[in-house]
Amino acid sequence: MSQAAQANNVLYAQAGGVTAVINASAAAVIETVQQNSHVFGKIYAAINGIKGVLEEDLVDLSEIDNALIEQLKYQPGAAFKACRFDLDPLEHNPAQYERVLAVFKAYQIGYFFYNGGNGSMVTAQKVSDYCRARGHQVICVGVAKTIDNDIALSHCSPGFGSAVKYLATSFIEATIDIRSMHETSTKFFVMEAMGRNAGWLSLAAGLVKQIVPDAPLLLLPAETPFNRDAFLQRLSDLVEQYGYCVCMVSEGLQNENGDYLNITAIEHTVEQDYTQLGGVGEIIAKIAADHLNCKTHCAIPDYLQRSASHCVSQTDWEMAYGAGKASVMAALRGEHGTLPVVIKTSDTPFAWDFQTVNLQEVANLELRVPDEFICCNGMDISQAGIDYLLPLVQGERSSPFVNGLPAITPINFQLTERVLPKYIAFK
Amino acid sequence: MSQAAQANNVLYAQAGGVTAVINASAAAVIETVQQNSHVFGKIYAAINGIKGVLEEDLVDLSEIDNALIEQLKYQPGAAFKACRFDLDPLEHNPAQYERVLAVFKAYQIGYFFYNGGNGSMVTAQKVSDYCRARGHQVICVGVAKTIDNDIALSHCSPGFGSAVKYLATSFIEATIDIRSMHETSTKFFVMEAMGRNAGWLSLAAGLVKQIVPDAPLLLLPAETPFNRDAFLQRLSDLVEQYGYCVCMVSEGLQNENGDYLNITAIEHTVEQDYTQLGGVGEIIAKIAADHLNCKTHCAIPDYLQRSASHCVSQTDWEMAYGAGKASVMAALRGEHGTLPVVIKTSDTPFAWDFQTVNLQEVANLELRVPDEFICCNGMDISQAGIDYLLPLVQGERSSPFVNGLPAITPINFQLTERVLPKYIAFK
Repeated sequence: MSQAAQANNVLYAQAGGVTAVINASAAAVIETVQQNSHVFGKIYAAINGIKGVLEEDLVDLSEIDNALIEQLKYQPGAAFKACRFDLDPLEHNPAQYERVLAVFKAYQIGYFFYNGGNGSMVTAQKVSDYCRARGHQVICVGVAKTIDNDIALSHCSPGFGSAVKYLATSFIEATIDIRSMHETSTKFFVMEAMGRNAGWLSLAAGLVKQIVPDAPLLLLPAETPFNRDAFLQRLSDLVEQYGYCVCMVSEGLQNENGDYLNITAIEHTVEQDYTQLGGVGEIIAKIAADHLNCKTHCAIPDYLQRSASHCVSQTDWEMAYGAGKASVMAALRGEHGTLPVVIKTSDTPFAWDFQTVNLQEVANLELRVPDEFICCNGMDISQAGIDYLLPLVQGERSSPFVNGLPAITPINFQLTERVLPKYIAFK
Repeated sequence: MSQAAQANNVLYAQAGGVTAVINASAAAVIETVQQNSHVFGKIYAAINGIKGVLEEDLVDLSEIDNALIEQLKYQPGAAFKACRFDLDPLEHNPAQYERVLAVFKAYQIGYFFYNGGNGSMVTAQKVSDYCRARGHQVICVGVAKTIDNDIALSHCSPGFGSAVKYLATSFIEATIDIRSMHETSTKFFVMEAMGRNAGWLSLAAGLVKQIVPDAPLLLLPAETPFNRDAFLQRLSDLVEQYGYCVCMVSEGLQNENGDYLNITAIEHTVEQDYTQLGGVGEIIAKIAADHLNCKTHCAIPDYLQRSASHCVSQTDWEMAYGAGKASVMAALRGEHGTLPVVIKTSDTPFAWDFQTVNLQEVANLELRVPDEFICCNGMDISQAGIDYLLPLVQGERSSPFVNGLPAITPINFQLTERVLPKYIAFK
């Protein structure tokens, strides 16, 4: 132990939207902690991320069954429940931070691993800063995860490769479908990718060129402001030349004024502090239908792209497992306040490793698609873009099927008995 | 040969929306014809269904490579292109029929296999009636295919089982996702299934109960008229009890007046002779969001459910292959004007066979979900419904992956040189 007085129990939690492989990171954290029992004490997981810490909803994983760890390696969703919840700014709600510290002290948490994206890294940073300022020497390390691929400084994000594999596979199959039907049916097909303001996931459609080299692809990544005239021109050109057009659009597509092309979603009356995206595909399909006067179709995979454990990339799975392991190793080295990110160590063959960066360097940043990955007025993918994506989808590690359906079993953990007074949230 | 003067060449064509396994039927027709070369002469395929017959867009498959037949067995889309095109009524356009007869005579077509759904069977019937009335003794047999599962007299339709497997797999994965996120995020998730006026595909969601027995499922099959109050009541009950609700809705959901809940689609200005469906999921999500004042999400797999060669049911694949083979065998027995349909021969173990029925008996009929397969005011699946679906998704026969992507190669057939004058369509 780096400090004689340091608590040595471990807390792991999940936050933000899930990926198809987030639980592989959980398995890696658990196994790597087990392998280093000379340093680490008990291992706990919070249920529902930092919210579970506040509410003392904890699970003791110290005696976890090996079969359950193996199950985690194929399990979609967030096995420990992932929260869409952030701590308030310290000055607005010091009681929240006091509560986290109380829980950390009560469970002698000396290591905190927070598995999430950019936003979650801010939370991790705030928690650990507070604990340290109050004399509780917790080592806090992030575990990278997001299908959006927008974590700064990381070659790619664990979770992204599987979402790309799912989206590319689906888009390829749909392209072969439309290619065979367009002469008397649908001439324009659009699929909508998630990713908020980053267009990484929309690039997945570009992999169709590996299968259908002359696919008439029209990309609308979030990075390219939507210009109706330019869109219609490229659409007309492709349909004239090939008879059909296949399109992938980012849910976060904005027009040249910076407004989302997403009227129905914005009109949702739900109280929430962000604009819910989703639905731009239908708008693009309508614009194309009106212009071409033809049948169009729109697919919105929505959550399917982040939970498709039946279509997981082996490479991505290894990155997710590696992210969990690298975080524990960073903690062992005492690298508090860091996040292991993926770095590429070789192009041919593609090889990668983890390198820790400071949480501050990545927290709340949003990595967007670079110009060199797109071309044709931002409406197509470049060879550099394809070269970037292809290594990330290599290999298959899909969940097995039993009795015709994915061999998934819901996991229900037994919460530890609470030792603190019930948490009452003040707003 | 049953008749000395009968032409003995074969014509195969595909029509209507594709399935993930339609090309397995094509492979079966080709292989079964090859195995019976003492009866059959050359084998042709029309490109674009009956439209390809009119335009003399034919492919000679007599010397087809075995590797290409094997490729057909995994190929999504319609390898021979499938048309959304029907012949006009004979009295309106006799020239069309005359043209078909001219092509059949020119290529000595004695056997016509039309691979499609209900609508396509009408076309097959009309063509063969006309040819026979004009003294050309063609034997016409349908090859059943549709993801919609609405072919009358058939236990199920080849293509349906794979679409169910895809939808159920996706719905299960999404349910595990929402189950793990709902406490601070989405509480209502809806997925939209195809199937037009038949709710068969929406039932696929019911298989989630095999994995998550207490899944708070809300089904909106096309057979249950949408009652807003009943929907909101069940929604509230499920969310109150379980904290979330997962829903599958048929694209063809209608309200109690028989109107589609599908405003955007109906507003499409495209000239076409039917209402394009798709988009009801967004409407249901909006109704739920307004009622619960919570975050909702909607997935619309659209064409992905009919082209997912990466998620094929082995049982369904065998039915699709069997449908092609059974049609050729029916032709060998001289059963003109028939369609082999699937009959169940045993419950335990599930066993099935084909039996021919007259095309007239099934043409243009629409088989809908029987009452006993749904329950809870038509908003849930019954055990009988689950028992019906489960055998159809057994086994996996997915396309292999190479270099991280589905091992699909677009097929481009070489058309035969035309021997007739160019076809000029009159309307």
